[in-house]
Formats: sequence, structure tokens, C-alpha cells
Amino acid sequence: MSRFWSDTVRRLTPYVPGEQPKLANLVKLNTNENPYAPSPRVLEALRAAIDDTLRLYPDPNADLLKQAIAKNFGVVPQQVFTGNGSDEVLAHIFPALLRQPHPILFPDITYSFYPVYCGLFGIEYHTVPLTDAFEIRVDDYLQPNGGIILANPNAPTGCALSLENIERLLDANRDSVVVIDEAYVDFGAQSSISLIGRYPNLLVVQTLSKSRSLAGLRVGYALGHADLIEALERVKNSFNSYPLDRLALAGAIAAFDDKDHFEKTRRAIIASRERLVAGLVELGFEVLPSSANFVFARHARRDAGELALALRGRGIIVRHFRQPRIEQFLRITVGTDAQCETLLAGLREILETA
Amino acid sequence: MSRFWSDTVRRLTPYVPGEQPKLANLVKLNTNENPYAPSPRVLEALRAAIDDTLRLYPDPNADLLKQAIAKNFGVVPQQVFTGNGSDEVLAHIFPALLRQPHPILFPDITYSFYPVYCGLFGIEYHTVPLTDAFEIRVDDYLQPNGGIILANPNAPTGCALSLENIERLLDANRDSVVVIDEAYVDFGAQSSISLIGRYPNLLVVQTLSKSRSLAGLRVGYALGHADLIEALERVKNSFNSYPLDRLALAGAIAAFDDKDHFEKTRRAIIASRERLVAGLVELGFEVLPSSANFVFARHARRDAGELALALRGRGIIVRHFRQPRIEQFLRITVGTDAQCETLLAGLREILETA
Repeated sequence: MSRFWSDTVRRLTPYVPGEQPKLANLVKLNTNENPYAPSPRVLEALRAAIDDTLRLYPDPNADLLKQAIAKNFGVVPQQVFTGNGSDEVLAHIFPALLRQPHPILFPDITYSFYPVYCGLFGIEYHTVPLTDAFEIRVDDYLQPNGGIILANPNAPTGCALSLENIERLLDANRDSVVVIDEAYVDFGAQSSISLIGRYPNLLVVQTLSKSRSLAGLRVGYALGHADLIEALERVKNSFNSYPLDRLALAGAIAAFDDKDHFEKTRRAIIASRERLVAGLVELGFEVLPSSANFVFARHARRDAGELALALRGRGIIVRHFRQPRIEQFLRITVGTDAQCETLLAGLREILETA
Repeated sequence: MSRFWSDTVRRLTPYVPGEQPKLANLVKLNTNENPYAPSPRVLEALRAAIDDTLRLYPDPNADLLKQAIAKNFGVVPQQVFTGNGSDEVLAHIFPALLRQPHPILFPDITYSFYPVYCGLFGIEYHTVPLTDAFEIRVDDYLQPNGGIILANPNAPTGCALSLENIERLLDANRDSVVVIDEAYVDFGAQSSISLIGRYPNLLVVQTLSKSRSLAGLRVGYALGHADLIEALERVKNSFNSYPLDRLALAGAIAAFDDKDHFEKTRRAIIASRERLVAGLVELGFEVLPSSANFVFARHARRDAGELALALRGRGIIVRHFRQPRIEQFLRITVGTDAQCETLLAGLREILETA
């Protein structure tokens, strides 16, 4: 603490991202990265973009990337916003659209960056408890609000909400903005993008970090009515004109060009997830129904913190949140089949030496 | 305007960056990019970083880059903050350190993003007029304030403030933070970095966009007392954990590894600037004394807006600000000698056909 800090800084509780360990040879199942490499076309486009033009600013409006995203989803570029990872996109959404006279709503258990954004931007919020089965119940959101943000599938539970339920939520909240954070949607949930033409209050956020294997490139985007997108552009252009560098732009455009790679890798992860779930159940875990590239599991008899520590001793890292209601769960990223097998073998050993 | 916009968005006047035209073959002297390519070592490091690890998040703390910057300037990594271009670094400085009970101070003519940040973050400010010679007079800043931000050299004037004057400013403002924005410092001004050990209220901001020829890579940084840096880290970690992608990190680290390239290119630009100034004076321009990679010049008889338009017709773009006190100036980036010669030849033609 320093006398030079603003009140804002004094009050902040920053987000703590999952560890990015500097050790090699770890089985890293803690930050929901994709176990498969990005498309070879992305790597090729990146190589082609490394030249003297790096001395020049990138396109501040990311026009070519917006066109690629718009084409991919059958919308127009004016319905697309891009940013430095979906975290930055979310960071602009909060002051642009969710700072309203009423508090906003989100689940008690969800992406833990949401309350952090509220702290930074001075936004009041109410958390809505998930059901005992850790599901979102739409009826709980039919109350006055300044906006709603839901992750679908939710994190860290992995549970998905049906399109029918999201439409019910949108119908009941026509006067506030509903943000659906679809970071993990490609692993089994239904996207709400098909609804943006009908609901001017719907904003859908996605990222290239998970299903496109590009966490290292930092590209996210939002789709919604052009008026919502314009609000985001105004905030972005009051913050940082050029958040996407020339290489990130080139790589991201190429990522939307390789549908085969995208389909192949996400299907492989879904298949591995089902095998991982079966293995965990066999070891005595309860596993929440996952539509994501991670599973959320608790063991009937063994403490989650101790399991995480024992796994770490074996070079396997998973994520454990010391947070009410979920302190007995582990969030385990779906790796390759080999990585999942290593994890299951490690757990088997740990459980046997009880 | 939409009923879903927050009050913040309604009130904003976003920054307008210089044009990034999509036409080829322009002599682009409008956004102060470096006319020389980045160091070959940067391009090599970028190529080496393009591999499957792009599926993994970057280091959120940018430790290796902070070490490289710290080593370059003889400070410790705890005195270094990094961000997505110096614009993002500045965007975090405003809410972290400049949102105070008193209004902040900056010149009436300076980087036009400063009042935009104030608008976004709800910060009051007073502008302090430059002298008639467009210089900053330190005595004008000896008044109660919630912080001071100065560009040194100033933009778009190019005029530098001496280290002696900056120290006088720091001595007189020990209770508020003084930010020195050194985006252009390597082209002839004195850096204040040598003062950060003695002044816990001093924050110095630099960028790789200008003197390191990497506007396309989006890397900026701030140096100051560890307490000031911690404030920035707290805001950054409440906004976006990973603003620098894996490639930007790799390229930026390599940029600090090639001192020869840095010295050679910045000296070439300084030499070209002196030739450009002489040429402009010969054509009847008044040119402010520049310590930057641009010059700020007005013609005794010809309207600046008309000159900019006539240059554009010849495929040469420069920047013209329609702003009180400076509407008769052109800001011209120092290009290669050949580009400067093309500009001077274009101006000569235009002036002859009066």
C-alpha cells in the first residue's frame, strides 16, 4: 500500500489466473488449454506476417478479422467486436453495458473474474445461487437487474444451459443486456449466436484460446446487435486503439480458415472427456455433466486439496478453488487420451495408498 | 446511441488514431512509425516462437521481459510494468494513480489521449497552456494537483524538457504522482529514468513502437518505484491477466538484445530530421525545435489543412490537427532521407503553384 495509490487500487481484489509453471514435463491440466496444436495454417500465416511491416501499427479496427468472424458465423462485421482475449472483451463490456442503475446478476459459482471487473469499475452485483445440482435455474433470474452475465457452459462446473432456457431468459429481460460468455461452447453446448438477430439485448462472447488452441495469441470477440458493438468500440477507443498486434490479427484470421482442424480437435477432446469421466466415476468420483474441455469432480471420501497436492507431487497439475460450496471439487482440463490416462493412473495410486 | 448504453459510454469522446490507410505506395508520414525495419534478431526470435506452444497461455507476469527491461535500464524487475503498447500502460495509470481528490494537470497541447482517459475513468483535469513558443514552463505546474502527466518530448510539438526542469517539477510535487511519457525520448531528449531511485512519485513510460520499430507488436512499459508498479499490477490483474501474447513477449525481449540496431537507426533518424528541418525552413516553414522522430511546422503564408490535402493528392500523408492554437501546423514523421526528399519535393511543387 502506498499513499500514491488511488482509492480504486486500495479497494481492488485482483483476479488470480491459474498457474503457468516454468517447469517442463508437467502434465498441465489446470488452465483449460487445448492439448492439440493450433492449425498448421495459423502457424503458416504467422510466419508470413513476420517481416518489416512490424514497424507499422496494426489496423486499429481489425477489419479483416471482423470480416473473417462475421463470415464464419453468418453475421455482418458491424455485429462483431474483437479484443485482446475474451478477458479484455469482458473488461470493456462491464463499463460499457453493465454499469447501470440496478445491480447486475450472475451465479454464485462462475468465472471468478466477473466480481473482479465489478470491483474495478464500481458496479454493484447480486450473486444468484446455483441449484444443489450446481445448475443455473432461469426462474431465479426473473427479477429487476442492470444486466445478466452467464458463462455457458458455466465455469468451473462445465454445466450447459439449453438454448430454450437462454431464450426464456432473454424474453424475460428485454430491458437489460444479457451477456453469454461462450469460452467453452464448442465442446458441447449450444451457442446463442443464432439469437442475436432477434434479441438486441444479447451479447455473445467467444475466444480463440480454447477450441482454436490459441491461448498464447490472445484473441477474443463478441457478437451482438450493432448498437451494443458500438458501445464496446467507444470504450475500446477510449482505452487502447490497437489491442491486437499484427501477428495476432494474421493468426486469428487464419484460424477461421481451417474448419477441418477445428472440428477434428474439438471432437477428439469431447471423446477424451467421455473416457475421462468414465475413468473418474470408476475411481469413486462424482463428476458434474460437462459440456466443456474440463470436468468438475469430487471424490466421495478424499479431500480435494490433498488430492491436488498429491497429484502435483507426481507432476500433474489440476485446479482447486478454495471457495465455499466447491472446495471439495477439482477442475481437471481434458488433455490428450495419454494425459488423461496419466492423470487416472496417478489418482488410482493416490487413492490406493490412503 | 442505444438505451442499453451505460452513462459512461454516452459521455465518451473516443480517441481518433492517425489513419492506417489500406493503399500501398503511400509515403506514410502521419503516425510517427520508424522508417527502418525492426532488428533482425527480433524477427528471428519471433520465428522461433511460432510453434505448438501457442496453445498455452503466455506468462501473465511477463517475467523474462521485465528482466530484460530492468537489465537494460539498470533497475530491478519490481520497478518495471509491461503492457499492450504504452497506450494500455497509460490506460492503467489513470485509474491506478491519477484518480485523486484534486484534478490532474497536463498541457493544453499534448497527446490527445490524455483527456480521453480522463473521460473514461471520470477524472477531473486542468489543462495548463504551453507558452507562446509552445514550451512547457515548469512554474505553471507549481499548484495543487492530483497528479501531473507530461510527454517528453511533448507531442505533437516535439519540444523537450530538460532533466533539470523535470527534477524541479518533482521537487515541487512530492505529494502527487508525476508521469513522464517518453514515447519519443530516444530521438534526442533526456530520459528521467535516472531519477526513479530518488523520486518515489515518478513514473516513466516508454514504448517499443517508435525507437524499436515495433508499432505492430504492441509493447509498452513503465518504470518507477515498486509501490507505483504494484498499483499498476493490481489494476492490470483486475482487467486482463495476459495482455502480452507469446510472440509479443519473445519479440520484445529480443529487441533489448540488439543495442547496435537501436543506436544505428535512431541516429539515422536524428540525422534525417536535421536535414528535413533545414529543407522545411528553406521552403518558408517555421519548425519547432524537435527532439522526436517528427517535426511540427507551419508555413508563413499557406494554410496547413490545404497543404495536407495537396500532399495527400501526391500520395504523401502527414497529420493535421484541427485544434485551437495548432491548426496551422503539420506534424510530419521523419522518414528515410528518400521519403523526406519526396515530401520536400512535393511541398516545393505545391508552394510554387500557389
